[in-house]
Order: sequence, then C-alpha cells, then structure tokens
Amino acid sequence: VTHPDLPTRLRGVVGDGGLVTDPEGMRGYLTDWRGAYSGTAALVVRPGSTAEVAAVVRICRELGVALVPQGGNTGLCGGAVPDSSGRQVVLSLDRMRRIRAVDPVNQTITVEAGAVLQTVQEAAAAVGRLFPLSLGAEGSCTIGGNLSTNAGGTGVLRYGTMRDLTLGLEVVLPDGEVWHGLRGLRKDNTGYDLKQLFIGAEGTLGVITAAVLKLFPAVRSRATAWVALPSGGAAVELIGVFQELCGDRLTGFEVMSRQSVDFVLRHQSGARDLFAAVHPWYALVELSDTLPDAALDELLERGLAEAFDRSAAEDAVVASSPSQVAGLWALREGISEAQNYEGPSLKHDVTVPISSIAAFVEATDRALGDAVPGIRIVTYGHIGDGNLHYNLSKPEGSEDADFRARADELARIVYDSTRSFDGSISAEHGLGQSKAGIIADYKDAYELQLMRGVKELFDPAGLMNPGKVLPLG
Amino acid sequence: VTHPDLPTRLRGVVGDGGLVTDPEGMRGYLTDWRGAYSGTAALVVRPGSTAEVAAVVRICRELGVALVPQGGNTGLCGGAVPDSSGRQVVLSLDRMRRIRAVDPVNQTITVEAGAVLQTVQEAAAAVGRLFPLSLGAEGSCTIGGNLSTNAGGTGVLRYGTMRDLTLGLEVVLPDGEVWHGLRGLRKDNTGYDLKQLFIGAEGTLGVITAAVLKLFPAVRSRATAWVALPSGGAAVELIGVFQELCGDRLTGFEVMSRQSVDFVLRHQSGARDLFAAVHPWYALVELSDTLPDAALDELLERGLAEAFDRSAAEDAVVASSPSQVAGLWALREGISEAQNYEGPSLKHDVTVPISSIAAFVEATDRALGDAVPGIRIVTYGHIGDGNLHYNLSKPEGSEDADFRARADELARIVYDSTRSFDGSISAEHGLGQSKAGIIADYKDAYELQLMRGVKELFDPAGLMNPGKVLPLG
Repeated sequence: VTHPDLPTRLRGVVGDGGLVTDPEGMRGYLTDWRGAYSGTAALVVRPGSTAEVAAVVRICRELGVALVPQGGNTGLCGGAVPDSSGRQVVLSLDRMRRIRAVDPVNQTITVEAGAVLQTVQEAAAAVGRLFPLSLGAEGSCTIGGNLSTNAGGTGVLRYGTMRDLTLGLEVVLPDGEVWHGLRGLRKDNTGYDLKQLFIGAEGTLGVITAAVLKLFPAVRSRATAWVALPSGGAAVELIGVFQELCGDRLTGFEVMSRQSVDFVLRHQSGARDLFAAVHPWYALVELSDTLPDAALDELLERGLAEAFDRSAAEDAVVASSPSQVAGLWALREGISEAQNYEGPSLKHDVTVPISSIAAFVEATDRALGDAVPGIRIVTYGHIGDGNLHYNLSKPEGSEDADFRARADELARIVYDSTRSFDGSISAEHGLGQSKAGIIADYKDAYELQLMRGVKELFDPAGLMNPGKVLPLG
Repeated sequence: VTHPDLPTRLRGVVGDGGLVTDPEGMRGYLTDWRGAYSGTAALVVRPGSTAEVAAVVRICRELGVALVPQGGNTGLCGGAVPDSSGRQVVLSLDRMRRIRAVDPVNQTITVEAGAVLQTVQEAAAAVGRLFPLSLGAEGSCTIGGNLSTNAGGTGVLRYGTMRDLTLGLEVVLPDGEVWHGLRGLRKDNTGYDLKQLFIGAEGTLGVITAAVLKLFPAVRSRATAWVALPSGGAAVELIGVFQELCGDRLTGFEVMSRQSVDFVLRHQSGARDLFAAVHPWYALVELSDTLPDAALDELLERGLAEAFDRSAAEDAVVASSPSQVAGLWALREGISEAQNYEGPSLKHDVTVPISSIAAFVEATDRALGDAVPGIRIVTYGHIGDGNLHYNLSKPEGSEDADFRARADELARIVYDSTRSFDGSISAEHGLGQSKAGIIADYKDAYELQLMRGVKELFDPAGLMNPGKVLPLG
C-alpha cells in the first residue's frame, strides 16, 4: 500500500528492533489510550536518536510517505493516531526517553521527547526542584506529546502551560534537517522565536526530539481545602479572594458542578460527600510555598473567612492529613472515569475570559437543557485559567445511541456559546483530528489562511501528520 | 525621492494632523532617544486607529514604499530608526495610546500599541492590580515597542518577559489585512500560536496595533537589601539561597560589579558607599508579597544568614524606609548614565545559562583585559535570567576615538565568549539595525534560513522595517 522500498530503507536506519510491521505489535500504536480513535499504518518506526529521526524523515519525504509522530498516545483529540488508509507511518518516540541533563543552578532539565512526564517530575525532585506540569495521564504521556499539544493540567494557574515551561527545542523539520534550538536561556531576543511554532502544532510542522524545560524551587508546605459554593459564579469570586490575599501561593483551584461530584460519589469506591447539605458547585483550593513553615492552613482559613463574609462560599473543609488531601484530589480526578459509567460522555474543553464564566455557564446550561431536557451536564475544570471541561451525559433512562447521534449538534451548542463569550473551543486538548474540520467555523478566516501559510512554508509536501490541526486540502 | 502620490494618498487616510513632512517636525522621529542612530524619511505618518494603520500599509504596499514602525523610540539597537535613504516612511503609533479595557476579574488589560508603559502600570494599579513589566524607559517607551522587542527589565525573574505577559494581539500585516487576535484567554490550543511570531519581531512581520496583557494581584509588602559579594559567582549562590527559601517572593535580583558601582559613586549626586570596605560585586535583592503583613524583612535576614554561612555574602544592609529603598535602586539604575561621564560606553547585552555565569565572567574579563589593558568593565544586570549588561569603558587617560575604533573587535570578544558558553548575543534589546548583520555569525545557518522563510511568507515585498533583525538581501 505504500512504497515497496520503505521497510528496507527504514530498517537500514533503525535496525530490526526499531521497526514494527506485524499487526499484533502495531496494535498499541494504532489506537489511542481511550480507544476513541483508531487507524491503520504501513508500519511503525521507532528511531533511537535524533539523527535516526532525521534519517527516517528524509526517507519518508523521498518516498512520499506521510508520518504521524506519536508520544504516549494519551491525547484526547486523535492527534497521534494515523488515518485509515494504511499508507501512513507512525513515528514513535518511545525509544528516545533519555534525560540528557539536569542543571539545578540554571533550573533547567534537558529531556528527549519520549521521556514520560512523571519521569521528568521525578528527576527534578531528585535535585530538589519542581517540574510543575501535572495532569491525569502523567504516568504515560510523554514530553513530546505535552509540547505538541501545549499541555495544561492543574498547575497552569501558577506555572503556565507547557509553552511557558519551555526554553529550548530540538526539532527535525519536514525536510529532514535538525534545528538545534536546545537553548537553556531565560532571555534570547535574536530574531523570531521559532520554537513557539512547534509547541502546540501537534506534529504538523516537524518532529520535536528534545527540549530544555524550566524547573522551579521545590515546594515544602501545602494546604488544601474543599469548598462548597452557592453557584458557578461564586467560584470566580472565591478565586479572586485567594489571588489577592495569597498571590503565587495559590497553585491549585479546581471547580466541579454538583453533577460531576454526584457521579464520583456514585461510582468511586470510598468516595463520600463532605457536607450534609447538597451544594450546586464545589472548589478544590490548594496553597503551596517553598517555606517549610509557611502556616498555609492559617492563610487558607483567612481566605475562607473572607469568602464566607462575601457569600462566596457556603461550607468548607481544610484537609488535615496527606490522606485527606489525596481524598479531595480523588474526588476531582475521578470525574472523568465516573462519567463513563453513565453512558457516552461527550467531552468539550473550552475557555472563556474568567470574568464571563458565570454568564457563560448559565447560557450554555440553558441552551443544552432546551435541546435535551434532562441532559446531565458534568462541568469541571481549571477556572483560574477560564478553562472548563464541559462534558455531557445522556438523560437518565434514555438510549446511548440516541444521545450519541446528537453529539455534533450538542458540540455546536457548546462551541457557539463559547464563541459568543469570546472563548476558545480547545483550551488544552488541541485540535487533533477531532476538531481539525470544525475549527474553520470558529476561527477567523484570515487567521486560518496565515496558519495554512505557515504549514506550507515548513511542510510543502504535506507529509507531516496530515489532516491534523488544519483540514486537508 | 519616493512616490509623488504618497503624501496625498496618506493625507486622505490620516488627515493633515496625521502627517508630518517638515524637517523640524520629523526630527524627533528620525533619531533614537540616546542619539545613537539617525536616519531620514520621506515623511512620518501617525494613524489614529487600526483601520488607518491598515489603510496606510495598503497604500505603501501599492506604491512600493518601505515602512518603519515606531513606538517611543527608546530602543537601544536602532530598530525603530529609518535608514538614510530618505525613501522610508516612519509609521508612528503615538496617536494610538488608548487603554481599551481593564478587566480586574480576568486580570487583563487591553491597550493600544502607542500607550506608554507607565500609563499601563498606572491603569492596572488603579484597579488593584500589577502590570509587572518595569524598565528604565518606562515613562517613554510604548507597549508596541515592548512587544516588538520582547522587553525584559527587572521583573523578568518572577513575571517573565513581555512575551510571557501577552495573551492576545491585534496586528496589521504587510498585506494590509488586520489579524484580530485580541483574545484574553489563558489557554487556547486551536492551532499555531501566531502572536508569538510578532512578539520580538521588531516590526519586520507587521505592525502591532493593540494587545491584551496579563495583570497580577497587587503587591502589598516589600523588602529590599543591598548585599556585598566576594565574587560574581557568589551571586549565583546567593540567588539560589533566596529562590529555595522564598520561591516566588523573590521578585528582584540585580548584580553589579564594583566598577559599575564606582562610576555611580563618582558621578551620581548623593550616592554613597554603603560599606566601609570595597567589595568586588554587589547584589540588590527584593522580596515582595501580596500579603500586607508578610514579614519579609525577617525572611530577608534568614536568607542573608544562610548566605553568610555559605560565604556567599560579605556584608549586607536591609533598607528600613522607602527612601532607603529608592536609594538602593538609584545605585543600580544610575549605572548607565554614570558610565557616560567616563567616555564612550560600548554596550553588550548577553545571556548565558545561570550555572555558567561565574566561568563566563572570568573568561570574558580576562579576554577583554588581554585585548585592552586597563579596560574598565561595567558588568551588571539581571542575573536570575542569566542576563548581564557587559558594558565597556576606555582605560583611564586614553583617547575616546582610540577606544571607539576598537568597538567591533571588543564586541566580538564578548560575543565569542558568550557563544562558547551557549549564550545569546542579545538578551533583551533585540537585534535592530545594530546586530542584524552580525547575528549571521552567531546563529545557526539553518535557523537563519527558517527565519528568512518566515519573513518572506509574511512580507514577500520586504517593505516592513527592512534591514532590521535580518540583513538585507
């Protein structure tokens, strides 16, 4: 189905161990982690070095074969899954997982794209530093995938997205050349900041092979609270109280609708409601500090007292042990899994300006309820970034298929509402294949034209992850 | 010297008040603030709105006239100064200085490119927020210039450069189209992050007309110390002590060689040495906090005690009043002016990884001393970013002209040393016209080729600030 010389040519670069051609061995590379996207491939190639990646890219370019770069395959939009033609090659970075250097004084770590996020967190901790990117898939996702999707997660509020955590990149471009941009500098104003183009490009402009990432001082105090809120809008008031009081100590602020928590209480073993009353929204508030004796519990109480005064909170629990902290985070992190027990889960990952959150949630909930009476709306996320996961479950007792059939219509409702509040239809998951088509309806035509120009400049043959981010043709 | 229809066509867009054609009126636009770069121009055009900027760009494109976008004209590399042909048009943003919106809840401010930095700082403070970009020229420089040079300054350690402070841009591209990227979102992963290309591009890819910038909670406690150091390398140790202890509270860390301080003591009225002994290096340490009662003096003392234990400090003074704080900052900020009294000042603005600072300073000082015995090296800067201003004054009693004649040779010494420590030859000043030629010797040829590709993609006619950033032809 693809060029007959391809396997031999690639084997010459990566050896037998670097090539997977049997269906059994390829299986794990052809379907994403959740099983939401599947494709086929001519073969899977696993280069062991940057030079090998470059050689693979040159061969594929010469033979006109499209490449799909892949990291941990944990993405939510199918960006790392090949199409169904069987003509594409999956380029897995899973053999390039070295930590090349750790420099605690420069507060940087240099890692290969295939390194698993958790490994990087651990390497930083081993020298008394923090690598703050944190997300559900951290035990499986890789730095290359984190870079290519500009990953977010729970630490963005204080530390920013992957883009903010990146100082330098090494990239193999579609022409097979290596761009050596692995700089560990905090300031460098010597022309266009090319690395920014590859971050968040989902492998459509080249293959990221390594990165220099920022480290931070280790955190030595932490305090965590679970707060019951009178409304979604109150979350915005509450985060304002903590930001003004605590500044950078506020390192976590997650919100969850009652529906989200309900599902966890129903399906997560050991989960229990922390309050006697039912509240419409909840927040998980985390303070942290480099000082070992930072008295954060007191500060948390001080913020909560002000929140009660302002009617921004109805009830609160401050965790008093590590196991309580873990329990609170389990309530938040269990939402996605718990929702799976309730039938199909239609996921949307959006941002709006924080000042519009209350009005946005009200308008969107109303529009969804009008479209599907009884729809269960599982809204939760990182409200300090204006980022809500607007997930939907079918009305109780209705058919899965009926609900799934309305997925596009319901997505349009969420996205149209997002647009009317000047928001983005992909906050932290990227576009992948799932939104590469729809984005044309939500992005300014001129901006899309500029994006196409960039794509054509870097990848004129269109062989680098085609069909992702931008629609084909 | 340029197209005969140009003045009439432009007057039709911007009116009489928007056009400057007389030599007297143009003078201030043709020479930078320091008087280091001068040029001539066909005329100066001062559009009053984004639509007018777009119309001006379209007319100039049609008539084949090159444009030089200009903000406060305070840049240090001549990036906003026209060439000497008399054929270029200066496009000044000085009539577009509106603050379009302030959103304290979203922690954003939307401003036009011609707004003066200090005005933006004040507008943020008026709603209890901080806009943290801070630099010497803040009373004159504009947001458009700050964006176009990715400005740094003294707040980068905690808050990052202008790039890190920017959420959205509005840009008129060289084709005269307006890109409406004025988003106030903390997360938006819907394709290539185009705004990153315009930040730091020094007006070579388009004209930035407005931006959405990040705000932060107001700071309500502050503590400042002046610390005598045994060596430049000790500054790296000292900053490590404060970062590990204080984390994000460390918002300022400036270092100065004794030579730098000597010049200030000699030329700044009222300046006095804070210690009886002479020390080779000094640091200015600033802690700040959102808490009004943060006890930062205690924390500063705690850090200093540890620094003394580790022999990273020889003496220290903690400021006990706002006027003492101002006096310490005056010592730091007076260096550049004081140096002017000592003959020509050859300025270099470089970064290296922080872990290499000590070795870099030692090697560079030695090479400079070998080349010019008696040379006076005025090194100071933002060491937390690895950024040193490596400025040079002639040996005492020597001729200005002799020293000036060796400017290129001495720059090469600084830059070659910077390169050998994997550094950058422009940390925060950009390339402008002063380094647009030399950068080809210090940047990877492939990276330059990619930069040229981007330039040609956006500005195929080469009419947008030609000769800046990239060499002509």
